[in-house]
Amino acid sequence: MNTFGHLFRLTSFGESHGAAIGGVIDGCPAGLEVDMSFIQAELARRKPGQSHITTQRDERDEVEILSGVFEGRTLGTPIGFIVRNRDHHSSDYDSLRDVFRPSHADYTYAVKYGFRDHRGGGRSSARETVARVVAGAFAKLLLKPFGITICAFVKQVGDIVLDKEDNELNFNNIESNIVRCPDDETAARFIARIEKAGEERDTVGGVIRCIITGVPAGLGEPVFNKLHADLGYAMLGINAVKGFEYGSGFDGVKLSGAEHNDLFVPSGSGLHTLTNRSGGIQGGISNGEPICFNVAFKPVATLLKPQKTVDKSMKETVIQPSGRHDPCVLPRAVPIVEAMAAIVLANHFLSNQINKLLLSCQEEKRTGGC
Amino acid sequence: MNTFGHLFRLTSFGESHGAAIGGVIDGCPAGLEVDMSFIQAELARRKPGQSHITTQRDERDEVEILSGVFEGRTLGTPIGFIVRNRDHHSSDYDSLRDVFRPSHADYTYAVKYGFRDHRGGGRSSARETVARVVAGAFAKLLLKPFGITICAFVKQVGDIVLDKEDNELNFNNIESNIVRCPDDETAARFIARIEKAGEERDTVGGVIRCIITGVPAGLGEPVFNKLHADLGYAMLGINAVKGFEYGSGFDGVKLSGAEHNDLFVPSGSGLHTLTNRSGGIQGGISNGEPICFNVAFKPVATLLKPQKTVDKSMKETVIQPSGRHDPCVLPRAVPIVEAMAAIVLANHFLSNQINKLLLSCQEEKRTGGC
Amino acid sequence: MNTFGHLFRLTSFGESHGAAIGGVIDGCPAGLEVDMSFIQAELARRKPGQSHITTQRDERDEVEILSGVFEGRTLGTPIGFIVRNRDHHSSDYDSLRDVFRPSHADYTYAVKYGFRDHRGGGRSSARETVARVVAGAFAKLLLKPFGITICAFVKQVGDIVLDKEDNELNFNNIESNIVRCPDDETAARFIARIEKAGEERDTVGGVIRCIITGVPAGLGEPVFNKLHADLGYAMLGINAVKGFEYGSGFDGVKLSGAEHNDLFVPSGSGLHTLTNRSGGIQGGISNGEPICFNVAFKPVATLLKPQKTVDKSMKETVIQPSGRHDPCVLPRAVPIVEAMAAIVLANHFLSNQINKLLLSCQEEKRTGGC
Amino acid sequence: MNTFGHLFRLTSFGESHGAAIGGVIDGCPAGLEVDMSFIQAELARRKPGQSHITTQRDERDEVEILSGVFEGRTLGTPIGFIVRNRDHHSSDYDSLRDVFRPSHADYTYAVKYGFRDHRGGGRSSARETVARVVAGAFAKLLLKPFGITICAFVKQVGDIVLDKEDNELNFNNIESNIVRCPDDETAARFIARIEKAGEERDTVGGVIRCIITGVPAGLGEPVFNKLHADLGYAMLGINAVKGFEYGSGFDGVKLSGAEHNDLFVPSGSGLHTLTNRSGGIQGGISNGEPICFNVAFKPVATLLKPQKTVDKSMKETVIQPSGRHDPCVLPRAVPIVEAMAAIVLANHFLSNQINKLLLSCQEEKRTGGC
Repeated sequence: MNTFGHLFRLTSFGESHGAAIGGVIDGCPAGLEVDMSFIQAELARRKPGQSHITTQRDERDEVEILSGVFEGRTLGTPIGFIVRNRDHHSSDYDSLRDVFRPSHADYTYAVKYGFRDHRGGGRSSARETVARVVAGAFAKLLLKPFGITICAFVKQVGDIVLDKEDNELNFNNIESNIVRCPDDETAARFIARIEKAGEERDTVGGVIRCIITGVPAGLGEPVFNKLHADLGYAMLGINAVKGFEYGSGFDGVKLSGAEHNDLFVPSGSGLHTLTNRSGGIQGGISNGEPICFNVAFKPVATLLKPQKTVDKSMKETVIQPSGRHDPCVLPRAVPIVEAMAAIVLANHFLSNQINKLLLSCQEEKRTGGC
Repeated sequence: MNTFGHLFRLTSFGESHGAAIGGVIDGCPAGLEVDMSFIQAELARRKPGQSHITTQRDERDEVEILSGVFEGRTLGTPIGFIVRNRDHHSSDYDSLRDVFRPSHADYTYAVKYGFRDHRGGGRSSARETVARVVAGAFAKLLLKPFGITICAFVKQVGDIVLDKEDNELNFNNIESNIVRCPDDETAARFIARIEKAGEERDTVGGVIRCIITGVPAGLGEPVFNKLHADLGYAMLGINAVKGFEYGSGFDGVKLSGAEHNDLFVPSGSGLHTLTNRSGGIQGGISNGEPICFNVAFKPVATLLKPQKTVDKSMKETVIQPSGRHDPCVLPRAVPIVEAMAAIVLANHFLSNQINKLLLSCQEEKRTGGC
Repeated sequence: MNTFGHLFRLTSFGESHGAAIGGVIDGCPAGLEVDMSFIQAELARRKPGQSHITTQRDERDEVEILSGVFEGRTLGTPIGFIVRNRDHHSSDYDSLRDVFRPSHADYTYAVKYGFRDHRGGGRSSARETVARVVAGAFAKLLLKPFGITICAFVKQVGDIVLDKEDNELNFNNIESNIVRCPDDETAARFIARIEKAGEERDTVGGVIRCIITGVPAGLGEPVFNKLHADLGYAMLGINAVKGFEYGSGFDGVKLSGAEHNDLFVPSGSGLHTLTNRSGGIQGGISNGEPICFNVAFKPVATLLKPQKTVDKSMKETVIQPSGRHDPCVLPRAVPIVEAMAAIVLANHFLSNQINKLLLSCQEEKRTGGC
Repeated sequence: MNTFGHLFRLTSFGESHGAAIGGVIDGCPAGLEVDMSFIQAELARRKPGQSHITTQRDERDEVEILSGVFEGRTLGTPIGFIVRNRDHHSSDYDSLRDVFRPSHADYTYAVKYGFRDHRGGGRSSARETVARVVAGAFAKLLLKPFGITICAFVKQVGDIVLDKEDNELNFNNIESNIVRCPDDETAARFIARIEKAGEERDTVGGVIRCIITGVPAGLGEPVFNKLHADLGYAMLGINAVKGFEYGSGFDGVKLSGAEHNDLFVPSGSGLHTLTNRSGGIQGGISNGEPICFNVAFKPVATLLKPQKTVDKSMKETVIQPSGRHDPCVLPRAVPIVEAMAAIVLANHFLSNQINKLLLSCQEEKRTGGC
């Protein structure tokens, strides 16, 4: 329920205005060097208040590792960690205690649990993703020495689309602007669009694109736990996400099979495909090409203008929000997308170690050994 | 790995040209009346050879229940079942033994396992979905008495789109044509497009839309196992699927928050939303409105015309396929989408029974009892 | 790996001399009243330094709840909690850094992980059970309103056995002495035996017996997840446990079937058995009689006298322990046994809610309704 | 619920008098050579009617592999298999339809499910263990090339105990007599005791001992999923089992710590212990010494003489059994104990592959590389 992953697992806890957000990472192999400044930097990319286009909630988001790390390296035991909540203005939410905000989780939580923490959205707040970014940072540290790199960026804000192919982009440029778009000209248009939403006390959605490179062929399971199904599940678990597509995605359905197929050519000791409509995954298993997918984020539901709604006693009412909110979550969602992708990859990477057990034995047999 | 679901679980097995496809359904409650003719009818909707626009492989697809059902009702014990494979022309695949077909799983399986069953795609064949349809039929039987109905249809073939709102459609009309589209005029255009693909020995993709009605508010988990994330995971596990979106989906990102929010109004003893951009799910939990989502299917990779590719020894070659194949999988994928959705709903429906344990106690306390 | 339970789950973390021991309880239903003084009292029963026959490590063991509880009640969201480690004399362990203590986990951890936290046994220390006692306290709070009571006591210390039947004992007397034996005369003998072990700088083992009353018939699964198998698994996961038996146990094998069978007699609207060699469980499922089992604890391996052993470079050496240790863990293990039993029962109790879904429907049908 | 294992998993199905017993093995690595005659031989060891001291039910117990094996080797995909039930005399059970047999699962199933298959015990019959023996045979085939050997034998029948140490026994002798005891003289006494039980139309219990050799150090998890806890859970899931102990077990509690500790001595490039009271497992992890444990089986509840009991309408009645039954299940339970142990070991063995990922990297670092 609050656990993600199989061999590399995050169990997450925490409410937006509770004492802390935290988690337990189980299954991280022993002996991994833990670069705390990297982990803290990942949190800084997700942090509120990082620029004028994000919420001004002021959190330092300092992570405290409580277990599983000793003398700078992982022990193989579970890594417990917490990030204290500090700047919660819970009184901002007093008027919302018995009211169901439109397109929020207030009503569904009330029905499901009969009782809820109304402060800042409680458990339904995206503040919970702090835990995912910490776990994702560990996953990235695990994958990095094996050459696996995960890189996400903002591809669309409202109806403005970054109209370039991946190979036309410089991914080193992503962190150079506050909206996390590798193309500066488009970034400027995105920022203007978000500023406009902020001025209108409204919100705006968009699309994040993620590219994973260096993935060896053979990761993923053939039926359930397909690599793209696990990625899709991970992305659809992020707040405000409404859609996921990989490779050719929704547009690909318009092509014929002959147009869509990725032709193989020999490449070094292995294979390469001339196109990548498969998005790096065939039959649920990585084929060695870059993995690429898009994630759709709705415009978030919290507006800074009055809205009609209904309260607990089923009477109509009007809400006047006074909290601090993001007009557009996409810039802060980029590290969350990467974190969830990293956890998925870490799982399949570890799982793949088991496949290797008999593979060498098989090959030796064919050549007379074993 | 080959198990889907948590409380209501399918474990699936079988290769396309092996002895049988089968599965084990675990967690189906005891006492459910098993309507075998309904289960067999669901299989008939998925069956090859059902019309001139599908593959002509001739399978009766008769299911044999081996356990878990006694005197017409479920025992609460696991339901083992098999469907024998009969009309497999394995020799059609002899020439493909050492060749990697483009955009298939041949290469990725070879890398992952070092060894594969090349006949008819082996485990990567959509023939495996027979097991899902059987399990989905049990899930539908479980949900039906509680008023939950699942209904999918073909919404797009190639670039032809069914251009009507859900409420303009008569879902009783879906099974009246071989392409499974509720609008007869559009159905005719879909069929012509598929026939054209068949004539060109090519394939065509499309979109299936699914509507689930009668779902009570409160189903789904707030962080991971969000109801839509589980649905997306289920859909992305179906062969040839490239994308999933629910509610407003990818198009919704263009709206502002004020345009996108679904306003609540009182309705009977509960609530209703004036619009349904949330797709019946808020914060990962059902809100009582219809659940709706779209699933993108690529044009399948098996063409009946020659294609260049590479073989096991990394030499270039040309394949000349001779098997029997679907020019478009969408008509046969409709019951698979429904089946997977039914299994997801059954899981959350059963899980929700636990929430009820203390809910009545909570209410009694507030009114002085318990 | 570090998660216990299925529907009511504890994920535990923490090393003996790390920052904190903690855990996450997932699946606890919403609306449960959280009696913090009860939880703290349970921890006090496990706490070091509680009497002269336990280790003198001075820990307050105050639990901080970080999430999942709001205004005194559970939210249905995960309950994160920590207990800070305070009085760890890590320098006591400096000399043990590269040495493998006999019958400890030092060597096996070193082989498995290639790296370990040598301070106080690290993760292998029974200090980890703090997390289990907290989770067990929540489970007890959940079960209590439904009349399920769990009660453990010390039955044997070394070769001294409490020689009375369960029905001759007054379980209210268990907490009246420091060894947690309901019979004062035997308790005195147990205490003397433990004092003797302490004086000899040696340790002594024993047996804990646990009785669970008020369990309704129908809890447990028939094949795997048998109720007694889950209890056995839970007990064998406690440090120093070497054996588990329920009902007639190892002695029962000497009886014939005719002697061993528990005969049914009508009792109220249900059934009762004249004897209880089944230990309250038949075919893996509770039958409504008290559940009873025994747990064997070895004499713990940490002695306060010199022992020969081997170090990391495979050289022979002698260890001179200087830490603070329990000569007998049984008095402090009583609440741990209860806690683990409570978590197991909570799981099966919640799971059983699902069985009820169709049961009423079945009965109505038989009488013409539904 | 009906799935056992984590990385190497058996999902089992089938009722005693249903169409078939079967299962799905998921997670068996690809490329394993499948020795069908070995698998069939394992089933023959469990088969009814194998000698005059077992039930005379006549089953050939031929396994049909339905998937996952191709050209004599495993594919890495799930292995579905069935064993048809043939010689079920279901009419023998007509009189038991509404009666609860003493110390059987009849009553608990009826309460749990509201409905049951009364024929031959349905799902509660030990006939289900056919599936475990098949899965165990695959696990043995997986472990064998790595030198892991599992060997169980009958240690006690009623109050007759095989009074020899493991090192005094010749395990090659186990299959030379029908009771599966390595000591011929004791075997004769066991057989006589079972014959006596048969003549008295009664039953007798006993103890099975299991020894696992060749297990490398490092298998098992430190907190939950301790190697011995998983073994205990596996054994307690076998029908009629009442207790489990490993290493020094229940008797070990009488020793002092100084007497009980296993002292390390250097041995080759590793370590060895002078004694093995730890039973080959320290801190839940294998230490390289032989793993040894005992399993207590009650005298089975099915007697061939009349017994008083109660029926569904809570009226007292007398049952007159007429089926065919084992007076003592121990000889046939030996391969079941081995099978379950093999599945546990296979899981930990595969899991341990993941630990190796960073271990070599750690070592290289210490010596300057990586």
